[in-house]
Amino acid sequence: MGRSEKMESVIIRMVDNVKLKNSVLIVGLPGIGNVGKITADFLIESIKAKKLADVFSHHLPPQVLMNEDALARLVRNELYYKKRKEGDIVFFTGDFQGLTSQGQYEICYKVLELATKLDVKRIITLGGYQIGKLMELPRVLGAYTSKEVKEEVEKLGVIFSKNEPGGGIVGGAGLFLGMGQELFGLPGVCLMGETSGYFTDPKSAKQVTKILVDYLKLGTDTASLDERIKEIEDITTRMIENPSPEERKEDLGYFG
Amino acid sequence: MGRSEKMESVIIRMVDNVKLKNSVLIVGLPGIGNVGKITADFLIESIKAKKLADVFSHHLPPQVLMNEDALARLVRNELYYKKRKEGDIVFFTGDFQGLTSQGQYEICYKVLELATKLDVKRIITLGGYQIGKLMELPRVLGAYTSKEVKEEVEKLGVIFSKNEPGGGIVGGAGLFLGMGQELFGLPGVCLMGETSGYFTDPKSAKQVTKILVDYLKLGTDTASLDERIKEIEDITTRMIENPSPEERKEDLGYFG
Amino acid sequence: MGRSEKMESVIIRMVDNVKLKNSVLIVGLPGIGNVGKITADFLIESIKAKKLADVFSHHLPPQVLMNEDALARLVRNELYYKKRKEGDIVFFTGDFQGLTSQGQYEICYKVLELATKLDVKRIITLGGYQIGKLMELPRVLGAYTSKEVKEEVEKLGVIFSKNEPGGGIVGGAGLFLGMGQELFGLPGVCLMGETSGYFTDPKSAKQVTKILVDYLKLGTDTASLDERIKEIEDITTRMIENPSPEERKEDLGYFG
Amino acid sequence: MGRSEKMESVIIRMVDNVKLKNSVLIVGLPGIGNVGKITADFLIESIKAKKLADVFSHHLPPQVLMNEDALARLVRNELYYKKRKEGDIVFFTGDFQGLTSQGQYEICYKVLELATKLDVKRIITLGGYQIGKLMELPRVLGAYTSKEVKEEVEKLGVIFSKNEPGGGIVGGAGLFLGMGQELFGLPGVCLMGETSGYFTDPKSAKQVTKILVDYLKLGTDTASLDERIKEIEDITTRMIENPSPEERKEDLGYFG
Repeated sequence: MGRSEKMESVIIRMVDNVKLKNSVLIVGLPGIGNVGKITADFLIESIKAKKLADVFSHHLPPQVLMNEDALARLVRNELYYKKRKEGDIVFFTGDFQGLTSQGQYEICYKVLELATKLDVKRIITLGGYQIGKLMELPRVLGAYTSKEVKEEVEKLGVIFSKNEPGGGIVGGAGLFLGMGQELFGLPGVCLMGETSGYFTDPKSAKQVTKILVDYLKLGTDTASLDERIKEIEDITTRMIENPSPEERKEDLGYFG
Repeated sequence: MGRSEKMESVIIRMVDNVKLKNSVLIVGLPGIGNVGKITADFLIESIKAKKLADVFSHHLPPQVLMNEDALARLVRNELYYKKRKEGDIVFFTGDFQGLTSQGQYEICYKVLELATKLDVKRIITLGGYQIGKLMELPRVLGAYTSKEVKEEVEKLGVIFSKNEPGGGIVGGAGLFLGMGQELFGLPGVCLMGETSGYFTDPKSAKQVTKILVDYLKLGTDTASLDERIKEIEDITTRMIENPSPEERKEDLGYFG
Repeated sequence: MGRSEKMESVIIRMVDNVKLKNSVLIVGLPGIGNVGKITADFLIESIKAKKLADVFSHHLPPQVLMNEDALARLVRNELYYKKRKEGDIVFFTGDFQGLTSQGQYEICYKVLELATKLDVKRIITLGGYQIGKLMELPRVLGAYTSKEVKEEVEKLGVIFSKNEPGGGIVGGAGLFLGMGQELFGLPGVCLMGETSGYFTDPKSAKQVTKILVDYLKLGTDTASLDERIKEIEDITTRMIENPSPEERKEDLGYFG
Repeated sequence: MGRSEKMESVIIRMVDNVKLKNSVLIVGLPGIGNVGKITADFLIESIKAKKLADVFSHHLPPQVLMNEDALARLVRNELYYKKRKEGDIVFFTGDFQGLTSQGQYEICYKVLELATKLDVKRIITLGGYQIGKLMELPRVLGAYTSKEVKEEVEKLGVIFSKNEPGGGIVGGAGLFLGMGQELFGLPGVCLMGETSGYFTDPKSAKQVTKILVDYLKLGTDTASLDERIKEIEDITTRMIENPSPEERKEDLGYFG
């Protein structure tokens, strides 16, 4: 057998050939408190964004996920879009982040390469900022590569605080921001909802969502997130009163 | 010395140039309770399947295995085939699964690429479903990407149970199913025998084998697996009565 | 979507097209006691070296770092240069070293490939030599690939001591020295300041800096490092008197 | 800056352009008890084999080693040769084995590719077989891919024992044997000296060396290994009488 091509490390399979204009890219991947992914998933559903592409990669786990009916699907990242006269929106979300440093870079690079073809002009990445305690009203902290976008979101309540978060932002929320600016000339901000970081955190996601709804002028009602917040609060209350490890495991999936 | 090609990450060496038609691919690799591999090895021997190809890869351990005579063979994966008028059968088995995520994807991709040339139309992957306790009569659970194949195997006793197994299927049994469907358009099912997961489990493999024999209309007698089941049961009984770690180590090879 | 190029593993982005002549390459990366990086950063600032290039790589962490104003920058390595009639100087420094063995080799190889275009004739790598205790006056130990450079720096006080350090030099300080000689024919020395290795060590860096200032005839005053030395000494004194883990964490960044 | 080639994963740099005929390849790398490397190093020196090539690779550690004079050399693997009318000999040895599975395969593949150009007809790999206790007279066990070579070395005292060693041979000693046979059609044997595996073991190496000297008709006197055996025995005796961890560390380098 002759020498054949090996699997591409990142495979983007377009499922729609729509032409987008003046787009903003929203990146919401699994991560701390799952804040970014909850926010992206909520908005995709709320504004009825359409599927644009599947992203498969050997940098994701070698795994299928099953729905409750036992239908299996290969783990993936996904792109969605929403056409609007104010400028189109592209969402990037997924089941997992790349497993290695190289994996994270390669997936990010390929998605940004596609983004330039989708006329993406700005990037907004979403994440959680772990503070190790529960907050009544989580703040939304920001990091930026563009002063202009920074000032716009600052007016909407995003806090750019000295040395908060210190150190850096690791993973997709940081990498899309940094690589977007450096290698593709795309300015952006990262919005981080404060979260205990101990479980999936819709309360933090709600604050991030509100900022995004304002910024993108979506007019979406975020009240439907309250139900999910109540569920999580009920579970955490039960856990505090009756800390059974079995229940914890069943009720609180990280990717829930 | 000039720049020369480096070793391909996956090398498929054909040992037979047979032309196959209307094939089904059976994937049985080492894994939980070794259920998939026992099933595949048993059927390959029972129906006298012939060797089709060797698969070598730097994603497998850098190791030789020796037979009892000290003859050494490089670790590998292998393809076997059986020509039949009802449609041909291709088996994929091996000494190890790929060591990394990338390794699992690359081996799977190359084998599926070959599968399309072997006129493979459906995929059946085999594995164990770890339940952490011994079962008198292990059930066979299923996951699917094709409703049609699902319904066929359901009639033969495969259980498609809500949220069982939850989460996902990791490794070759999941990956061939998911990648087969997504990247090669090949529908399939995964058959998982319940197993304690503590040792190699021919009893679970027997249940999976029976389903496969029915589904593929092989007419194979699975009674010869009973001898192996008895061996394992004798060992586990001895272990429960006299739990000597030395004996455990000698008698119960994972890849046995 | 067609098969597109994947991200290069190491991307060197030139920011200046200066033509350099008869250059020496100074390598000062994060490492033991951060001695190499402190030295390189101090000299770059003192002699007002100019930015030459950014080096991005998937071998670096997938991360942005933020300044205190929350401006985010993708982690990177950097090249600086200083034109001089005595021969030009190129500095190589950065936020991190490559995360894996392959990463270290690939970054080093690409930078040395560029170095040959910058007319680099000699390499001086900088690092710390961990001795596990505080020293009043840290010595500067050397390793070499060129007898000529060895003799020059020996006259300036660098100690080439039998079996000190034993074993070898791991990371960029070793690799640029060894690969420079073997694959690019560039002779050099490695200068290692003795350091406890427990925290960032400007005192050790000062001794290395003095040697470099002499060797390169820079005439730079190293007194401004004393302030930084005092800061670290104050912190270590406080830590000895009052070992609070919180303070330790806040005050003593490894990359400080 | 344009897209440039990245570092080859394995770089073989020829230092002699000798034409070899009817060669045997001896593989002696660092490993269990260092048996393979001691044997190869001893023979290279005894029969005054000449340097043929250096092998550099990003699969080796990013490190330089220093001689006692502080002269640094990049870690490497090396090929040596000896021309003889009975057939030429090629030795492969080195400072380290590849750090990963992929690294071991890629280095082995490139060296075997070169071996075919050096008219290599047979492969003999050397290693230690860890038995966890000291032996007065270590046996030499064998594994083979060629019945012919097996029978030849069996006559010289190599033991091909049922299920000894069980399992397999991991690392270069196994890989060169298996890959040589499967991918390059080169038959061979692996000679394994019994060793406690606790420290570098010249006594075991001596037994392996004797077999090789006989097999290759070298007529080399192995008595000079006795001095080294005595050194190690003195150290182990001292360690048993006075088990000071410091001394152990100083005296017993694994790669000694």
